[in-house]
Amino acid sequence: MAIWVLRYGHRRMRDARASTHVALVARALGAKGIIFEGERDDLLMERLRKIAKEWGGEFEVRHTADWMKEIGKFKAAGGWVAHLTMYGQRLDDVIDEVRKQKKEGMGGMEKDGLVMVGSQKVPTEAYQLADFNISVTNQPHSEIAALALFLDHYFQGTELKLEFGGAQRRIVPSKMGKNVITCNE
Amino acid sequence: MAIWVLRYGHRRMRDARASTHVALVARALGAKGIIFEGERDDLLMERLRKIAKEWGGEFEVRHTADWMKEIGKFKAAGGWVAHLTMYGQRLDDVIDEVRKQKKEGMGGMEKDGLVMVGSQKVPTEAYQLADFNISVTNQPHSEIAALALFLDHYFQGTELKLEFGGAQRRIVPSKMGKNVITCNE
Repeated sequence: MAIWVLRYGHRRMRDARASTHVALVARALGAKGIIFEGERDDLLMERLRKIAKEWGGEFEVRHTADWMKEIGKFKAAGGWVAHLTMYGQRLDDVIDEVRKQKKEGMGGMEKDGLVMVGSQKVPTEAYQLADFNISVTNQPHSEIAALALFLDHYFQGTELKLEFGGAQRRIVPSKMGKNVITCNE
Repeated sequence: MAIWVLRYGHRRMRDARASTHVALVARALGAKGIIFEGERDDLLMERLRKIAKEWGGEFEVRHTADWMKEIGKFKAAGGWVAHLTMYGQRLDDVIDEVRKQKKEGMGGMEKDGLVMVGSQKVPTEAYQLADFNISVTNQPHSEIAALALFLDHYFQGTELKLEFGGAQRRIVPSKMGKNVITCNE
């Protein structure tokens, strides 16, 4: 089972920082990769790949020119699609159902998931194509926070203990100050 | 018991959007208010107050010219200070201790809390003044996400059910589409 994040409507100038946060949250909290839709931003993607290499793990970063096709491919392969929106069903009310999505005829393996977060306004089709429209509170706040809470509730906190293999740099948690280990290969 | 957020090192041009996310997350997830340190940004604060008025509740927004003094006042009043940093102790390992902070001689009432998140690099003094330096994963990601997860774990999910009194606008969660109620006073 893998979770991917689809970042809809990225704009190079305006969204660089917020999209960086979205991608790093996806990686840190256990997603397998991020797919950017909108303006192709090679600089951003290169920077993210560099961070992923430095800090370990297998995070993938790519761009798509057709988000509906991505959703289509995902669903055709048996996966579910969740769209995070302040208008959706409450996270609490729906997360168990999302977690219980199992593949048919494959010994009940969990399905892969695609989590869509908008940068700009998301078109009506997204609401229709998604299996779940999910709100993390129905208040205005942040797609970065919404993604973090979705992943934390989906993985039930286990993602906070993830280890990232092959890291060049690692932090040892400490009460005060900074303890960074550099691993030379 | 109330939780406040201290946003350290805000810069008007560079941080407007990220600081907006931090403030809206604070509000949506149950903090009582936000204190901005760094460049005074009246436009941002006015916008946040307007959103808070529109969506209800009692969220407070203000600026400080002296973050150390704020921490000092907070601790003098018996509160705890948590600094969110990727170098700190793991959220899981420390959140129960934070939640158990009780006021002495007041029937064991929970203490108020101040949660500090940086925009730019946070000075060494912050690590020393904080009662808790807390990491939400030890990976690079987002102070917006870190704040959201801290508040969610502190309030143990109860904050996702908050109702905001006196709102001019309210969303009714829905499976598909948008259902917004406008409340005329």
